[in-house]
Amino acid sequence: MASEKIFFDNASTTRIDDRVFEYMRPYFKKNYGNPSSLHDFGEPARRVLDKAREQVSVLIGANEEEIYFTSCGTESNNFALWGLARAYKDRGNHIITSSIEHLSILNPLKEFEKEGWKVSILPVDKNGLVNPEDIRKEIRKDTVLVSVMHANNEVGTIQRIKEISNIVKENNILFHSDGAAAAGIIPVDVNQLGVDAYSFTSQQMYGPKGAAALYVKKGVRIKPLLLGGIQERGRRAGTENVPAIAGFGKACEIAGAEMDKNIKYISKLRDNLIKGINDRIKNIKLNGHPTERTPGNVHMSFEFIEGESILLMLNLEGIAAASGSSCTSQALKSSHVLLAMGLSPTMAQGSILFSLGKYNTLKEVEKVLEVLPPIVDRLRKMSPLYKE
Amino acid sequence: MASEKIFFDNASTTRIDDRVFEYMRPYFKKNYGNPSSLHDFGEPARRVLDKAREQVSVLIGANEEEIYFTSCGTESNNFALWGLARAYKDRGNHIITSSIEHLSILNPLKEFEKEGWKVSILPVDKNGLVNPEDIRKEIRKDTVLVSVMHANNEVGTIQRIKEISNIVKENNILFHSDGAAAAGIIPVDVNQLGVDAYSFTSQQMYGPKGAAALYVKKGVRIKPLLLGGIQERGRRAGTENVPAIAGFGKACEIAGAEMDKNIKYISKLRDNLIKGINDRIKNIKLNGHPTERTPGNVHMSFEFIEGESILLMLNLEGIAAASGSSCTSQALKSSHVLLAMGLSPTMAQGSILFSLGKYNTLKEVEKVLEVLPPIVDRLRKMSPLYKE
Repeated sequence: MASEKIFFDNASTTRIDDRVFEYMRPYFKKNYGNPSSLHDFGEPARRVLDKAREQVSVLIGANEEEIYFTSCGTESNNFALWGLARAYKDRGNHIITSSIEHLSILNPLKEFEKEGWKVSILPVDKNGLVNPEDIRKEIRKDTVLVSVMHANNEVGTIQRIKEISNIVKENNILFHSDGAAAAGIIPVDVNQLGVDAYSFTSQQMYGPKGAAALYVKKGVRIKPLLLGGIQERGRRAGTENVPAIAGFGKACEIAGAEMDKNIKYISKLRDNLIKGINDRIKNIKLNGHPTERTPGNVHMSFEFIEGESILLMLNLEGIAAASGSSCTSQALKSSHVLLAMGLSPTMAQGSILFSLGKYNTLKEVEKVLEVLPPIVDRLRKMSPLYKE
Repeated sequence: MASEKIFFDNASTTRIDDRVFEYMRPYFKKNYGNPSSLHDFGEPARRVLDKAREQVSVLIGANEEEIYFTSCGTESNNFALWGLARAYKDRGNHIITSSIEHLSILNPLKEFEKEGWKVSILPVDKNGLVNPEDIRKEIRKDTVLVSVMHANNEVGTIQRIKEISNIVKENNILFHSDGAAAAGIIPVDVNQLGVDAYSFTSQQMYGPKGAAALYVKKGVRIKPLLLGGIQERGRRAGTENVPAIAGFGKACEIAGAEMDKNIKYISKLRDNLIKGINDRIKNIKLNGHPTERTPGNVHMSFEFIEGESILLMLNLEGIAAASGSSCTSQALKSSHVLLAMGLSPTMAQGSILFSLGKYNTLKEVEKVLEVLPPIVDRLRKMSPLYKE
């Protein structure tokens, strides 16, 4: 891949930070022992796992013993739902979530329904916000769990987690939040947020793929999803992916230390891109909340044309963007997030996501602003829907 | 870790092959895209996943579309059990397994029992072999699934999988085998073995941690364990751990190409170690099958003393061995495998596993043979049970 290519798809995954990769390296070839082993080869693996647990917990204001490592964000979300629901099923069988959750929340909940659970899926407003009062109204005597994501992975809207948790806690219900698009990107303090469980992942914060975590508040019970050995205090069986977890720890440490700087830098790029597109292209719409959004998110609908066509033409120019969630991109369906926000299917199909990260530059933003208007223009001229 | 240290714990995990690591490297820093992405950054990730699927399938004589990637052997085993049982629950609710399976089989089956499934756990003989006729006797009208491991991870006994599958197939029952201690180590052909599903993992064959696979025979239905996006044809959601899967593919390719050489080399080391211990130390017992065992397995009981004490003293001499399964080593319990084979709890506690691999040498074997007898001698002299 030529180095001049532009990667504006940081929501799908991020380039690993060089410092993270260097930190991981010894755990492949030198300190390759199994952390469960009692000998000297297990020792450094065990130590780096402990260190990673500390680094990861610090990023979100948790304690080390509240962190369970998993293999990916999807596993963390599945673990949270199955683990909490099964541990607390004596309390009832009703779960509340929102219509814009990641599919690793919504799809397991479809299975829950087949097994007799009741699931309420709350609407969002046009900016993608859940109304906390809607949650209050939906709570029933048999409600066990509420799961509302922290930041949306497609449109970047940041939910009012604190307000939601206040309502949930008044009712003695468990509260899980999917922080895959938030942790490492915006400040997260699980105690301030008031969550009982929180999912987050390495590959969205310049860490390696293959490591993620679930925070579970001390005192909250959870059943394991993966059963076998006694790794992760019996809550997640399977040999730990030591290099990836080590890298995740390092990525959390760096993300915490450099967060203010990154937020300032990336937000500026984002605002430049949004303003530039606004100035140059008509009949567009910025999706997501105008102010309560993640620093790198530029999700736009372009009327009259297909997002996929824009992406293909951008790709020819060496620019990588996305049509929404990478977990569904190959299904070529309208995003459930956009439809839930009230976009028409044609506007939803006409949208693309530029997700900016710390390795992007103003020069790259300018390149996109140079290339994008003629692409949109050309596609619109070919569109039967478009009248100038 | 000093390089002169001796790693005789290849059953817990293996040192990554340099060629595997070099092959993985570009997928960390250069080709870091998400394989689900439609742009040029997704392309190389997608391509290497396809390649890995081919490499992995070839090792076990499968087709590419019969391979599902997971994060570890435990996940593959959990996926096989839950996925097959749920897909075929209309056929009945009885499962047959053996008493020497890995805990990632036995522990999920305990949960199955809580959910109303009936589980028959078959005994093994003193060599750790399941009698295929015992399976025939145990089969009932409502038997859905039989799961018997290919090679045992502690004592190395290789089961008569073909004989078992003949019986299972006569009865139109599904057959899963856990091949974590077999694939990449001894020849595996899933069609010859006659299995419907087969679990195996990268970290036992000089590949990276964080990648494993489940083979599912074409036409056999399986429900996903992890739900979310459409990765792995909808059977395993979650962003693929691209570098680890790439490395797993390469490790499979190398394991296949060099298997004959490795088996010959490692078996010779093993036989030297067994003979050497036999010649030098009294009151010992080789556990597992005398001939039907994996090439690197030397599992020994030393009467009158604790395996843990031997391990600690070996460790002081720079030699890493294990007391059994690394997934349970920190629980310090007697191995369920050894107890199932009829060892007394004291003999079980007095056993250690030397697991040899392709990076070990005859010189290392000689070093162990030099160091081990005085250790055993010293420990026995301290033992109240021992009379010379």
